[in-house]
Amino acid sequence: MQTALYPGTFDPMTHGHLDIMERALRLFDSLIVAVAVNPYKHPLFTVEERVEMIQEETESWERIRVEPFDGLLIEYAHNMGAQSIIRGLRAVSDFEYEFQMALTNRSLDSSIETVFLMPSEQYTYLNSTIVKEIAHLGGNVSQFVPKGVERRLREKLPQPEHE
Amino acid sequence: MQTALYPGTFDPMTHGHLDIMERALRLFDSLIVAVAVNPYKHPLFTVEERVEMIQEETESWERIRVEPFDGLLIEYAHNMGAQSIIRGLRAVSDFEYEFQMALTNRSLDSSIETVFLMPSEQYTYLNSTIVKEIAHLGGNVSQFVPKGVERRLREKLPQPEHE
Amino acid sequence: MQTALYPGTFDPMTHGHLDIMERALRLFDSLIVAVAVNPYKHPLFTVEERVEMIQEETESWERIRVEPFDGLLIEYAHNMGAQSIIRGLRAVSDFEYEFQMALTNRSLDSSIETVFLMPSEQYTYLNSTIVKEIAHLGGNVSQFVPKGVERRLREKLPQPEHE
Amino acid sequence: MQTALYPGTFDPMTHGHLDIMERALRLFDSLIVAVAVNPYKHPLFTVEERVEMIQEETESWERIRVEPFDGLLIEYAHNMGAQSIIRGLRAVSDFEYEFQMALTNRSLDSSIETVFLMPSEQYTYLNSTIVKEIAHLGGNVSQFVPKGVERRLREKLPQPEHE
Amino acid sequence: MQTALYPGTFDPMTHGHLDIMERALRLFDSLIVAVAVNPYKHPLFTVEERVEMIQEETESWERIRVEPFDGLLIEYAHNMGAQSIIRGLRAVSDFEYEFQMALTNRSLDSSIETVFLMPSEQYTYLNSTIVKEIAHLGGNVSQFVPKGVERRLREKLPQPEHE
Amino acid sequence: MQTALYPGTFDPMTHGHLDIMERALRLFDSLIVAVAVNPYKHPLFTVEERVEMIQEETESWERIRVEPFDGLLIEYAHNMGAQSIIRGLRAVSDFEYEFQMALTNRSLDSSIETVFLMPSEQYTYLNSTIVKEIAHLGGNVSQFVPKGVERRLREKLPQPEHE
Repeated sequence: MQTALYPGTFDPMTHGHLDIMERALRLFDSLIVAVAVNPYKHPLFTVEERVEMIQEETESWERIRVEPFDGLLIEYAHNMGAQSIIRGLRAVSDFEYEFQMALTNRSLDSSIETVFLMPSEQYTYLNSTIVKEIAHLGGNVSQFVPKGVERRLREKLPQPEHE
Repeated sequence: MQTALYPGTFDPMTHGHLDIMERALRLFDSLIVAVAVNPYKHPLFTVEERVEMIQEETESWERIRVEPFDGLLIEYAHNMGAQSIIRGLRAVSDFEYEFQMALTNRSLDSSIETVFLMPSEQYTYLNSTIVKEIAHLGGNVSQFVPKGVERRLREKLPQPEHE
Repeated sequence: MQTALYPGTFDPMTHGHLDIMERALRLFDSLIVAVAVNPYKHPLFTVEERVEMIQEETESWERIRVEPFDGLLIEYAHNMGAQSIIRGLRAVSDFEYEFQMALTNRSLDSSIETVFLMPSEQYTYLNSTIVKEIAHLGGNVSQFVPKGVERRLREKLPQPEHE
Repeated sequence: MQTALYPGTFDPMTHGHLDIMERALRLFDSLIVAVAVNPYKHPLFTVEERVEMIQEETESWERIRVEPFDGLLIEYAHNMGAQSIIRGLRAVSDFEYEFQMALTNRSLDSSIETVFLMPSEQYTYLNSTIVKEIAHLGGNVSQFVPKGVERRLREKLPQPEHE
Repeated sequence: MQTALYPGTFDPMTHGHLDIMERALRLFDSLIVAVAVNPYKHPLFTVEERVEMIQEETESWERIRVEPFDGLLIEYAHNMGAQSIIRGLRAVSDFEYEFQMALTNRSLDSSIETVFLMPSEQYTYLNSTIVKEIAHLGGNVSQFVPKGVERRLREKLPQPEHE
Repeated sequence: MQTALYPGTFDPMTHGHLDIMERALRLFDSLIVAVAVNPYKHPLFTVEERVEMIQEETESWERIRVEPFDGLLIEYAHNMGAQSIIRGLRAVSDFEYEFQMALTNRSLDSSIETVFLMPSEQYTYLNSTIVKEIAHLGGNVSQFVPKGVERRLREKLPQPEHE
């Protein structure tokens, strides 16, 4: 049985992340979405909130689990019995960072393969940081994130007053 | 009438920024230089100082206005009646970030076009951050910024003592 | 009056080219689509056919002309009274080639500015070469090119026999 | 059952190709190596020779088949019952070309996913063209290709006379 | 006599840095490794520790000196009598940053040349930041740094408790 | 004594090539400019003409030799007693190709180091192919190449008739 692990900060999850999850599920028997605690990145949402947002959107899906994780990714993947780590690859700048991480992970544990998938082109330039910036400035993010995430962004972020 | 908006932090303005402004004025009827307040970036100069430095260098120019702005760029451009947003494109790393911003802005308001101009090659690798670093370390920045900006940098930055 | 020139081989024109033409027309008073003869590239369609295909798709548009051209682009732009050259910018590999051409053109005639526009993201990875390859192998190109172009591709290219 | 298809010209197969095949076999139930006829590329080896060289190196492997193919890759993958297309991703220049192909293939048949794997870093800059150039100039290619391929390169290519 | 200067933060030195030092020593008569104080980067190790770690690994080498430095790199290189600045070039993202620095340095002092060397490919994606992250998460960094550096990383970084 | 080898096709030599030669001579004791015969590239000038053009421009220089070469570059460098191969690095697209060549050469002979130098930024986007194209179309190339090269280009290339 092929288990794939899809790690990330997911602060918050976007439609681009959901797109990659669907593609991974078509290729592998089971998918673990691993939400990194990442305290040094000062995420907007707690790890519990980030796990919950993904669970809400994927609760009708089969063969998928959402879990928080801390520590070294490659050890976590090994402990969870995953044979592969899934990464979405969108742009050249992603490419170099992702290659660095993948080669480093391979040098730490060569039995786990990093697999790159390509999101739908409408999500090529979408990322969580830009979604938070737009939401913070009062912009409409409904095309970038699911409804539940949009609601939580509104609750979490003080909205600018429009005159 | 075609109004273009040239947004940036301009902390401080360099010869590269002036170069782009001149090119934009040759193509469009009117240019608004929009100086982002950007408190999260902790700019060295206040937004008032940054507006002033650009006004000083462009005061003899026609068809140009310099304005501070806050909030969502695309809404501001819309409110100012601009049909286009001007961005200088220098290097591959610029390219990806600028594409992300341009596609995001387009998805928020498709009536405003992002237009990329190329600065003179002598400014290809010039940016405000490196100018501040050099000035901070006591280096000579007279070839990178106008005289007025150079003077303000000296006033603002504690100079290292040379033995 | 601002006249922009959009040069290319257009062998054949795709939806990506039409997208750039529409964007350019929103920003400039008049647009000249300049179809390069380019005999060294051994185009599939003659320059007359390439001009015709663009004319057919844009015949209801105003402020646009389609013309064949030969020789040095920057001289042609100058002779046509254009202030700017329009280029679509899609990917990093485009970027470097386009910068090289734009800087070379600027060094030959600094009064003409190269302006880069970004096509809709659905056309980011579309180009004429790949369209010809797919058509040649019998694939369906209706999502990449207008109907008239699709028909001409079928006429021009020997279709593979399907068993 | 997950069947992956690994297409290429393999003119000739290198250690880098074998590396990707091994990685793909760890992730998928079965692998079809699809050798493109590609007459327009004027390959050095016939498609039969290219198929044979791969078969010789992989004959003791299970769950792998090597087949020649002609025509549209995505149709071939569909006809072979593959759910995914495997591509090795080595460098930024690969990245853009591969993305273009993958997005084009997806637009032709969205049920087949392109999966990118990363070869061992010692093969990052290895490709068939450079191997042929070195062999042609009399250089030693034993570190780049299996012994059988090296022998065939020597037979195929006229060796320069060393004084 | 050709003196080259190899500047960096070296927080901490990796095998990739040692690799570049060896290559530079084969080309130049003398090498100064210049360890930037860089207080704004909040290095993990003090500049004294960083100098010491490099000295320990290179103490049997000839024609090399390790020195701390503060202030403007190009002035320091000039004062030390260096004709060139050595930089390791690994990836595209390095490339653009390094070019910016090199062109800026050249505009400040055109008599000093920046020379780019390529580390061994096994170090292509290695950097100090990733080494610190892995060490911090309790991973094994022995393949990335010399033994002395590994020991100091263990002493400096609180290890996570493994259950 | 440090001997560097600067290989290329030089079809024809440009100001960018001369710029790199001057930089290399400041760093190394002696420089061999190695002009590749390269029959497969169908150069415009014969190898004798290409050697001559470089010799004419550098005849007053010391410590430099210009030689034609054929065969494997790394063997030639070894036979000439060079410790390093000089390459000009201009843009990201150069970067990947040059890295591939440098790593391949290193794998064939690890005793010879590839050294990358950066041309003056005014030559960043200059190359021989574009110079030939402009000259062929009757454009003025005097800013790109020395006078002697310009004259030979005019003799070699049929000029378009201007009406």
